[in-house]
Amino acid sequence: MAVEQLTDVRVRYAETDAMAVAHHANYPIWFEVGRSDLMRALGVPYSEIEARGLYFMLSSLEVQYRAAARYDDLLTLTTTVEAVQSRAVTFAYTLRRGETLVATGKTHHITTDQQYRIVRIPDDILPHLRGH
Amino acid sequence: MAVEQLTDVRVRYAETDAMAVAHHANYPIWFEVGRSDLMRALGVPYSEIEARGLYFMLSSLEVQYRAAARYDDLLTLTTTVEAVQSRAVTFAYTLRRGETLVATGKTHHITTDQQYRIVRIPDDILPHLRGH
Amino acid sequence: MAVEQLTDVRVRYAETDAMAVAHHANYPIWFEVGRSDLMRALGVPYSEIEARGLYFMLSSLEVQYRAAARYDDLLTLTTTVEAVQSRAVTFAYTLRRGETLVATGKTHHITTDQQYRIVRIPDDILPHLRGH
Amino acid sequence: MAVEQLTDVRVRYAETDAMAVAHHANYPIWFEVGRSDLMRALGVPYSEIEARGLYFMLSSLEVQYRAAARYDDLLTLTTTVEAVQSRAVTFAYTLRRGETLVATGKTHHITTDQQYRIVRIPDDILPHLRGH
Repeated sequence: MAVEQLTDVRVRYAETDAMAVAHHANYPIWFEVGRSDLMRALGVPYSEIEARGLYFMLSSLEVQYRAAARYDDLLTLTTTVEAVQSRAVTFAYTLRRGETLVATGKTHHITTDQQYRIVRIPDDILPHLRGH
Repeated sequence: MAVEQLTDVRVRYAETDAMAVAHHANYPIWFEVGRSDLMRALGVPYSEIEARGLYFMLSSLEVQYRAAARYDDLLTLTTTVEAVQSRAVTFAYTLRRGETLVATGKTHHITTDQQYRIVRIPDDILPHLRGH
Repeated sequence: MAVEQLTDVRVRYAETDAMAVAHHANYPIWFEVGRSDLMRALGVPYSEIEARGLYFMLSSLEVQYRAAARYDDLLTLTTTVEAVQSRAVTFAYTLRRGETLVATGKTHHITTDQQYRIVRIPDDILPHLRGH
Repeated sequence: MAVEQLTDVRVRYAETDAMAVAHHANYPIWFEVGRSDLMRALGVPYSEIEARGLYFMLSSLEVQYRAAARYDDLLTLTTTVEAVQSRAVTFAYTLRRGETLVATGKTHHITTDQQYRIVRIPDDILPHLRGH
């Protein structure tokens, strides 16, 4: 079963917009924070991935916005690895405020070297991403 | 035929990340700039929409990233209205650097009043969004 | 003696730039997070200030950058109220990574109503800001 | 006399906050856009500076906020080199909306190599920064 990582997200004032809600472009940034926490929890911190010369480049993003979030709201983000392939990883995200569903989303990443060429995920990293 | 709005986007240094490319969370911000330009061109500036008590709340976002963009790159964003319903609008985006396709995307918006309740798009605004 | 508020700041990937360090425009955003935490601790959450029709508008900002911060660094921000006047407040900030001084800064705010006119800080809020 | 660079800045919706004004952390980002335009105009684009292995690291920032800016406002930023030393440069900024002064600011930068060690500004770059 997929490892679920929980991350607290407190909405910053700078993240609000003139509608007095969190601007939608912050959600992918929060997802990235959740992804970062999940990878640390899986034993493959993203900083180490980069230190080994790899990038997880985003190839697609989708977000469904269900309820607005406001300044100082304390949200809970759940991040999971949805799929792992030899050269790609998909993460899934659910953002809640208490029982209220705020947003869901997915990010799909390809693995590249630091010249942005697609490479395989190294064998010792794959099992971590698969959560076992 | 759909009205196409062209917007120049120069990648800001603040928009880059440690991979030395434009961070993916900036793309929805650029799309919003394109949407803003398109609505001004269609005769319904978004500032006027808000002055009339309406919000175009984002309900979903998708972005496909095709090529990296770097600091100081001059990109061209093409924005169109893809669909208009009585309480919703969908915009589509294509981002290029010269001939190179950098990204494509869509945003789906619902129309609300300033208490975030769904409302119909006023009759005098609809034809503008439909481009005729 | 001034109340000191400690806030943990984990550098987000989105906050880095092509120099592979946290971009300087994030520091005022982190300061705002510290200010928000401090005001909550002082019993006058900024959300309540706004609910009463007041804004703490920034009138000046200064930051001294002493050492670079990198992705995933865990920083500690210390926030204090430096001065309180009848229509203005000054906050001071110190940002550290362990023993290393990363940055210091100040923000000066004037109190306005929601039409952006300068107003006095209400009598029941003043003692909280003064920390007694 | 110092070269003055003019840059148009259109306030993005994403740059507004719940006070319905441009959030203060965007001003240093706009200043950076102005600096980028000025350096291009002076014949030393910042992208070339980095390609030669140099960084202009920010060592201090100050901003004075004089009037609020709102969504879709078209602002004019004036950027100048205020001082050049062998290992440091200071830029000054004035932001206006028509005749209204919106903000002023300064940034002080030290020159480093890409290991963040302070280095001299190369002899062929200095005259460009000095505007002659």
